[in-house]
Amino acid sequence: MAKKLELHPDRLLPADPSTRAIARDLYRSVAALPIVSPHGHTDPAWFDLDEPFGNATDLLLVPDHYVFRMLYSQGVPLEALGIGNPAVDPRAAWRLFAGHYHLFRGTPSRIWLDWVFAEVFGLTEQLDGETADSYFDAITEKLSTDAFRPRALFDRFDIEVIATTESPLDTLEHHAAIRRENRRPGGWQGRVITAYRPDPVIDPEFEGFRANLDRLSVLTGEDCRNWRGYLAAHRQRRAFFAEHGATSTDHGHPTARTADLPEAEAEALFRRVCTERVSAGDAELFRAQMLTEMARMSIEDGLVMQIHPGAFRNHNGPLFHRFGRDKGADIPTRTEFVHALKPLLDRFGNDPALSVILFTLDESVYARELAPLAGHYPCLKLGPAWWFHDSPEGMRRFRRMTTETAGFYNMVGFNDDTRAFLSIPARHDVARRIDCAFLAELVSEHRLQDWEAAELARELAYDLAKKAYRL
Amino acid sequence: MAKKLELHPDRLLPADPSTRAIARDLYRSVAALPIVSPHGHTDPAWFDLDEPFGNATDLLLVPDHYVFRMLYSQGVPLEALGIGNPAVDPRAAWRLFAGHYHLFRGTPSRIWLDWVFAEVFGLTEQLDGETADSYFDAITEKLSTDAFRPRALFDRFDIEVIATTESPLDTLEHHAAIRRENRRPGGWQGRVITAYRPDPVIDPEFEGFRANLDRLSVLTGEDCRNWRGYLAAHRQRRAFFAEHGATSTDHGHPTARTADLPEAEAEALFRRVCTERVSAGDAELFRAQMLTEMARMSIEDGLVMQIHPGAFRNHNGPLFHRFGRDKGADIPTRTEFVHALKPLLDRFGNDPALSVILFTLDESVYARELAPLAGHYPCLKLGPAWWFHDSPEGMRRFRRMTTETAGFYNMVGFNDDTRAFLSIPARHDVARRIDCAFLAELVSEHRLQDWEAAELARELAYDLAKKAYRL
Amino acid sequence: MAKKLELHPDRLLPADPSTRAIARDLYRSVAALPIVSPHGHTDPAWFDLDEPFGNATDLLLVPDHYVFRMLYSQGVPLEALGIGNPAVDPRAAWRLFAGHYHLFRGTPSRIWLDWVFAEVFGLTEQLDGETADSYFDAITEKLSTDAFRPRALFDRFDIEVIATTESPLDTLEHHAAIRRENRRPGGWQGRVITAYRPDPVIDPEFEGFRANLDRLSVLTGEDCRNWRGYLAAHRQRRAFFAEHGATSTDHGHPTARTADLPEAEAEALFRRVCTERVSAGDAELFRAQMLTEMARMSIEDGLVMQIHPGAFRNHNGPLFHRFGRDKGADIPTRTEFVHALKPLLDRFGNDPALSVILFTLDESVYARELAPLAGHYPCLKLGPAWWFHDSPEGMRRFRRMTTETAGFYNMVGFNDDTRAFLSIPARHDVARRIDCAFLAELVSEHRLQDWEAAELARELAYDLAKKAYRL
Repeated sequence: MAKKLELHPDRLLPADPSTRAIARDLYRSVAALPIVSPHGHTDPAWFDLDEPFGNATDLLLVPDHYVFRMLYSQGVPLEALGIGNPAVDPRAAWRLFAGHYHLFRGTPSRIWLDWVFAEVFGLTEQLDGETADSYFDAITEKLSTDAFRPRALFDRFDIEVIATTESPLDTLEHHAAIRRENRRPGGWQGRVITAYRPDPVIDPEFEGFRANLDRLSVLTGEDCRNWRGYLAAHRQRRAFFAEHGATSTDHGHPTARTADLPEAEAEALFRRVCTERVSAGDAELFRAQMLTEMARMSIEDGLVMQIHPGAFRNHNGPLFHRFGRDKGADIPTRTEFVHALKPLLDRFGNDPALSVILFTLDESVYARELAPLAGHYPCLKLGPAWWFHDSPEGMRRFRRMTTETAGFYNMVGFNDDTRAFLSIPARHDVARRIDCAFLAELVSEHRLQDWEAAELARELAYDLAKKAYRL
Repeated sequence: MAKKLELHPDRLLPADPSTRAIARDLYRSVAALPIVSPHGHTDPAWFDLDEPFGNATDLLLVPDHYVFRMLYSQGVPLEALGIGNPAVDPRAAWRLFAGHYHLFRGTPSRIWLDWVFAEVFGLTEQLDGETADSYFDAITEKLSTDAFRPRALFDRFDIEVIATTESPLDTLEHHAAIRRENRRPGGWQGRVITAYRPDPVIDPEFEGFRANLDRLSVLTGEDCRNWRGYLAAHRQRRAFFAEHGATSTDHGHPTARTADLPEAEAEALFRRVCTERVSAGDAELFRAQMLTEMARMSIEDGLVMQIHPGAFRNHNGPLFHRFGRDKGADIPTRTEFVHALKPLLDRFGNDPALSVILFTLDESVYARELAPLAGHYPCLKLGPAWWFHDSPEGMRRFRRMTTETAGFYNMVGFNDDTRAFLSIPARHDVARRIDCAFLAELVSEHRLQDWEAAELARELAYDLAKKAYRL
Repeated sequence: MAKKLELHPDRLLPADPSTRAIARDLYRSVAALPIVSPHGHTDPAWFDLDEPFGNATDLLLVPDHYVFRMLYSQGVPLEALGIGNPAVDPRAAWRLFAGHYHLFRGTPSRIWLDWVFAEVFGLTEQLDGETADSYFDAITEKLSTDAFRPRALFDRFDIEVIATTESPLDTLEHHAAIRRENRRPGGWQGRVITAYRPDPVIDPEFEGFRANLDRLSVLTGEDCRNWRGYLAAHRQRRAFFAEHGATSTDHGHPTARTADLPEAEAEALFRRVCTERVSAGDAELFRAQMLTEMARMSIEDGLVMQIHPGAFRNHNGPLFHRFGRDKGADIPTRTEFVHALKPLLDRFGNDPALSVILFTLDESVYARELAPLAGHYPCLKLGPAWWFHDSPEGMRRFRRMTTETAGFYNMVGFNDDTRAFLSIPARHDVARRIDCAFLAELVSEHRLQDWEAAELARELAYDLAKKAYRL
């Protein structure tokens, strides 16, 4: 017998009845606020072309490496799920997923997926082996209707603004088209902006780095094998991105290291990383130097900087060689900020025009390093619990370990950081619930007054994100 | 006036009444399940010879370094407790212990000991200076009766299977005798299996390493000063251990480092570590290489690998020189897994035949490294909260920091990991209570449905251990 | 309309009604115990001279870098607050503070300040832009009255003993004067003692280190450029400090590293650090060696050693050059204890005369390193949650992560560690509430009996501090 799919109205709120009542009131006051999504990885083509999403497997399983990694961890071959294997019948892949859905018990994927099933598709039974086919049919059928096209869902989700993430080599044609559509009388009004993610032309260890520099030269007319030309090309592309709505840059380096070299040394370093064989030390130092260069440009052009360090990408060598990037094998590593950021901070840390948002995958730095840094430096803010920590327990730890030292106002609200478009409202909803639960505990323990908690609930859900990202 | 010894039926369950009610129901459903103890350090001679355990001090105090270390930390000399000093009157040592029993408030030792006192020996007053003698007499008297012999307690504790841990140099004669007894018509049916713990012949820094190699040569007929002979000896001993029930190996290295050297380099390295003076670097590299060799053999023979890294053994130099190993001075150190395991994982990490269970003493890696690794690699599972973290708060942190990323099904249930035989049911009971409390919180917050929690309670208490350890 | 300032009698106690009731009873039993403050940074001149504290800004804002750092992090210039800028109107600075008071929501500063406002000054409305002036006037007026002079407040706060912290170069004249006053018939009876903080003459990287050695020579008549003379000078000053009530020393090194060099090497090292250019390695090694020398002297003279490692001082270079030390830019760093302390522990760790209290800013070592070390070594105790972690969540993490392994009796009670004299009762009150809440949870979960919790509540609030600091 199929099991009921339940989204309880009090989910994620504290068990203690009086605290739950406070949390419920707070949550009610923010549940319907529009979604501000200042950092994410949706595809702008969806909103430009507005084509149907296809079938359940193609939309919800194949592109979501944080779903299929769990199946893989329990012995399900990626090929059988259709990863790198288009020959697989989508329904067969879906059945395999459905039959293993219990693996997600206790994980945030389960919360997001159940929300998508119940709220987006109106399903009322839990996904399992038995309901696999009815799920596949119901979802696939709905996806073929107009109400489930990207723009319709965008509007239904009440997204006020969403940022995507592009490389400097991207021509942003879909963003341009969306902006034309926005300006067209009667045109679709969804606000979709880009963000400047220059890793492919900043990280000498990125696949195709030197070729990327050459593409950047072509795109900008600057000589990107020359240090000044290279910097000018960044300035030009940043301006181009800003014209397409960008208010931020994003930097996904292995570490948080920064450097502030004399110009001649920076130039010599750049020459070295442009050659065939780059040492690991030079690659690291160049990334470090470029964070400081990016900070300098941010002060000039007002783009907010995001630093996302600490992931060991593509850890599973054989899998990477066979299937490529983004197969669920990115693993966090220990990350240090205090020494790493000092060169950048000594140079620009007291400049009121600079704003840098720090993220981490290493929770041991929340209370030890990040909160004290953000509680002092005017340029620093803390991004929300990130990636593996974007979960009920992860968010709770983030609040508990950062608030007392950094305060609420050195935070930037929530990021959904996802390419799983349909789950965006669910992710913001989880953040709002967890934040209201946290605030309710503070009220319950008389650490905040109720009217203060109400103000903060709105700020955490909506205002801080707009302010921090200059939206 | 003596204080009442109380084992409250709701101990360790959440305070919130509705959550406690859920937890209580879950706990009731698993409280009486048989004990599966796949990793521990009991002495197989107990179950072979079935001799009485002796007096209270000899059984409960002298062998338990996690009890006497606390007394030592508060200034009680080890000699006065009978450690390395058989001249001490056991009753006098027991009085000293009893007079300091308040030191254990808030510790898991207190929970386990109180359980042993109340449930095994039927004592009804709390241990303190005043009740010291009546405790000593009551316990010592009961230990002399048949009902308190090892096999009788094994049966009373409802142990379905227990694993001990032996060196490759062990002849396993007690295990052989127990298996003969099992097969004897009307013989005792207790299932006692061994596990292969090769540190003494793998770690070049182990006391007597080279002499151990020579003993291994004698035992196997292989030339263990020759790389191939050495590997063949491992294969032979592993097969011998498997015949005596072993389903797992165990590796207690200072770090989690692995290596995958070309054969010629491995052979050269082995020659170097066989010499008188081994460098620290070579010792570490050899241990690293041997983890990969052990993985290769596990794929061949099906033994599950356990890796227990991160303890600084015998940290207290003067105490070690005077009293020897295992005197409560093993201290955890920071441990890294992401880079350390990559050589082994790149070689064998995607092989469906391999199963590696990871443990840590460094909780900062739970969410950052271990849960993401186990949530991706098919060969990896997470062992339970270990050693100092085998405690109510430690287990809660483990569940909270690993479940969301690794899921429940990449776990292996509970290990008691103890030589304190009488406390084994208490340890499993604590784990069951804490797991049911955790599940109850998820139900309370509507993150799991009640029937899912009920399934998981049983899996965490019983099924996962049998499956993970191939029992 | 001004908002009510509320200090709820149940603040910081658990929300669950039955647990709160237990916590409330425990708290009631310790709330009125006298304050024992064995480690802090108040100015002995206050208690010697007993002069009025001045205006609200000069007392509560300008000297408190943990308050103004938060304003600075949100863009308020330090000059506008009167930091390094005596030209600023104190009332204008106070208004700026008041207008940003919401930044402290959820922080311990808010708890302490609200307590000072409500309990010390009797204010009944919350501080904000609107009430800024009435606050400034009310506080400044009261500060001019006799009841708000240092000694009157000391008595009102029921401080049994308070320790200040001085450099070996300090002449302790205020302490001497206070002791004369204590002995004067009818004189003030407040007990104010010093503590020996030798960093300025131990750390070769301290500003003016070599000049400090010369001042120490003058003060002691020993040749402090000679290793034996230098050690003799320490012995002499320690004795002098002990005559002025000191029962402890304090060491604020960048790391916890210790060394135990042969005498000739120590002497050669000392010669090197006395020269103009000291290598970072020598500076670190000298600090390490001196911790062991201090331990040796502690065994001789009975002073308890406190080690406070792990702060990166004056992280903000430009701010330090402009405004000097202590401007809210001290940032914690990762800290290691297990290897670092071994040389000292191997030398003196088993000596019953030695007592070393360890503090950390790196919470990842609580359960992994510090609790296991303190749960074994007779000389080691754990200091309370320190600095950024002296907060409700920080204290809870400390208890949860240390108690199970170290037990309650390897702790030393609470330190307020502050120069903000008026907040001292608030800080002890927070610690008492959080400890009672923690104990209540243990009682609620039947991990402690109620009478045990009551004993522990008193020990944590009062007895352990007196015992650990030999007061």
